[in-house]
Amino acid sequence: MSDLIERARELDARDPLAAVRADFVLDEVVYLDGNSLGALPANVPGAVEDVVRRQWGELRIRSWTESGWWTAPERIGDLVAPLVGAAAGQIVVGDSTSVNVFKALVGAVRLSGGPDAGRDEILVDASTFPTDGYIAASAARMTGCTVRPLAPAEVPDALGPRTAAVLLNHVDYRTGRLHDLPALTAAIRAAGAVSVWDLCHSAGALPVGLDSHGVDLAVGCTYKFLNGGPGSPAYLYVRAGLQDRFDSPLPGWNSHAEPFGMRPEYAPADGAVRGRVGTPDILSMLALEAALEVWSRPDVSVDAVRAKSLALTDFFLECVAAYVPEGRVVTVTPRAHAERGSQVALACEDAGEVMERLIAAGVVGDFRAPDVLRFGFTPLYLSFAEVERAARVLADTLG
Amino acid sequence: MSDLIERARELDARDPLAAVRADFVLDEVVYLDGNSLGALPANVPGAVEDVVRRQWGELRIRSWTESGWWTAPERIGDLVAPLVGAAAGQIVVGDSTSVNVFKALVGAVRLSGGPDAGRDEILVDASTFPTDGYIAASAARMTGCTVRPLAPAEVPDALGPRTAAVLLNHVDYRTGRLHDLPALTAAIRAAGAVSVWDLCHSAGALPVGLDSHGVDLAVGCTYKFLNGGPGSPAYLYVRAGLQDRFDSPLPGWNSHAEPFGMRPEYAPADGAVRGRVGTPDILSMLALEAALEVWSRPDVSVDAVRAKSLALTDFFLECVAAYVPEGRVVTVTPRAHAERGSQVALACEDAGEVMERLIAAGVVGDFRAPDVLRFGFTPLYLSFAEVERAARVLADTLG
Repeated sequence: MSDLIERARELDARDPLAAVRADFVLDEVVYLDGNSLGALPANVPGAVEDVVRRQWGELRIRSWTESGWWTAPERIGDLVAPLVGAAAGQIVVGDSTSVNVFKALVGAVRLSGGPDAGRDEILVDASTFPTDGYIAASAARMTGCTVRPLAPAEVPDALGPRTAAVLLNHVDYRTGRLHDLPALTAAIRAAGAVSVWDLCHSAGALPVGLDSHGVDLAVGCTYKFLNGGPGSPAYLYVRAGLQDRFDSPLPGWNSHAEPFGMRPEYAPADGAVRGRVGTPDILSMLALEAALEVWSRPDVSVDAVRAKSLALTDFFLECVAAYVPEGRVVTVTPRAHAERGSQVALACEDAGEVMERLIAAGVVGDFRAPDVLRFGFTPLYLSFAEVERAARVLADTLG
Repeated sequence: MSDLIERARELDARDPLAAVRADFVLDEVVYLDGNSLGALPANVPGAVEDVVRRQWGELRIRSWTESGWWTAPERIGDLVAPLVGAAAGQIVVGDSTSVNVFKALVGAVRLSGGPDAGRDEILVDASTFPTDGYIAASAARMTGCTVRPLAPAEVPDALGPRTAAVLLNHVDYRTGRLHDLPALTAAIRAAGAVSVWDLCHSAGALPVGLDSHGVDLAVGCTYKFLNGGPGSPAYLYVRAGLQDRFDSPLPGWNSHAEPFGMRPEYAPADGAVRGRVGTPDILSMLALEAALEVWSRPDVSVDAVRAKSLALTDFFLECVAAYVPEGRVVTVTPRAHAERGSQVALACEDAGEVMERLIAAGVVGDFRAPDVLRFGFTPLYLSFAEVERAARVLADTLG
């Protein structure tokens, strides 16, 4: 046991991201649930207080222009863009992930030509986070399509002239499996269909490469590895080459070419702004903007984060193997780096109770029915010492 | 002039809401733009700080249950309910007004039977705030309907067996005209169509009576007379008797009967919760919850607010008539109380420049193209002395 404690000490001493931890508010709890709700960045309380007291309280309505409220969705979209490999002008922040899945999928069907062009099928990852499937069913119903659930690995064979759109998760929320975005995107494009990627569990944890892999549309949340806060706004990516044909099912006034023209006829704005809908939620949006500041540190990059993420999850698996009796838990997350997100899922029959005891013992992960212990690893603020301790407490808890 | 100053003093001395002003953060500016963005309630900064520092920063993921985050949309919906004459359990807070208009209108067409039942027309107020019309066009396109724009007064004659849904504004955003919700709702119901009311400019300013007048669906924002803050979440009302047939076009996981069951099949929750979509935006939502506390004061009621609102707008019109040379501005807002919301719109050719000078002189209203000076009156924090001063400065500004 002391070997692993010593190893953790060495890994922490060599960790190029170790200093970033001070930018977050943390305590003695080992917080392995940043893939559900990221920890509080230390600069956010002050930023939010300024938004509330000065921008709203003193400037009031003037802040829509003077405090940059009106342009926040596209400005913050441009802060998210480099984290997912997108050039500026293609991402807009706002609404929930579910609402953005609806915009993206209906938009994708329309871009494909849809049922009028013989494309009447939407392929959806069968193991997706449920909301994507529910919204896909609604998008299909409202565009004259049907939904076909399948495993991501089955997508290439299922693609055909009837495929309108394909909705996939970059990282599976339950297993932590990282899907092959480049190959799947290429296959979707070759079939003449439109790709929609859900980046909730990958953005901020690993390189995505939206532009370089030719992704058509993408959505993601900002409260997991981007630490935007509870229910912070999601985002929508529309590839630059598709923007002038992107036809949103939610053409609110914020997406109008001239929003304050108050014209009865709708005319869509150019660019990412076309993905906006209604009045942006400023408090949450500007909290997110502050939370993203950490990415402008010279020592922080997506590559550095990915390297540490793999080191953390490797080390956790190593510690679990050393501390937990063989057979007590089954590792669900793939061991191959190319197939692993930034989480480790362990299965055991009594996972619900185990997670309760683990949380009581100061190690916070979460339980996903029916049998998964889910541990998220946020490289910006986790240490190897914490990872070793989490595995040790887990072993004690498993008894 | 001194007569009106003296009158203002007397009106303020007798104002039963005068003490409520201390619950808001105000300064020497006369703020007549609360119908666009309400002023900051004094208790909100502390409430938001607690949400950020303690609930998010210390409790982190535990706050979804321990701080009541998960149930906030329906809990805060029940705080909005009495302000619009709704019993509990019919309103859910979340998403933007535009997104809620989409849910409500698609839901309304489906409730009417839609094109399959020969109901393929959506009637929409032609002078509506533009987003309602844009979203109505999308809802119509996606449900096989057409949109027919018309004046609210023309609705009764236009209703017929082909009418699926009718989307109307309770108060016109530009003119401040209050439409006859009881009579129009009754006519819509008699025609077998479904009513959808937009309450953005009436909720918190005057009695709405959703339940007593038999309104089917309604939406509204919370950042105007409800003072929820910039982009605070909107709400959706679905009459109790329609909830089990309400079929949302945005069936996100938050509206599932068992959201954490993570089931691939969608099964809608009962009640107002069915109108939820994705993860609620907690910072803005809990700021709104704090902002609504003022309505629990024993001296605050919708009736008291309405009485003062009419007194404020009457007095403003009287001061304008006394101070501004006849013919310089035209009063757009109806003089009859039954037709007036909580704003006064004055038209003049140079309205854009006039409003700029007025704001520079410390009286904040807003300009709506092409020729409207718009002044909103929030009875919770405005004094008659401010109203007199606003009219006086306006007269100076108009030159």
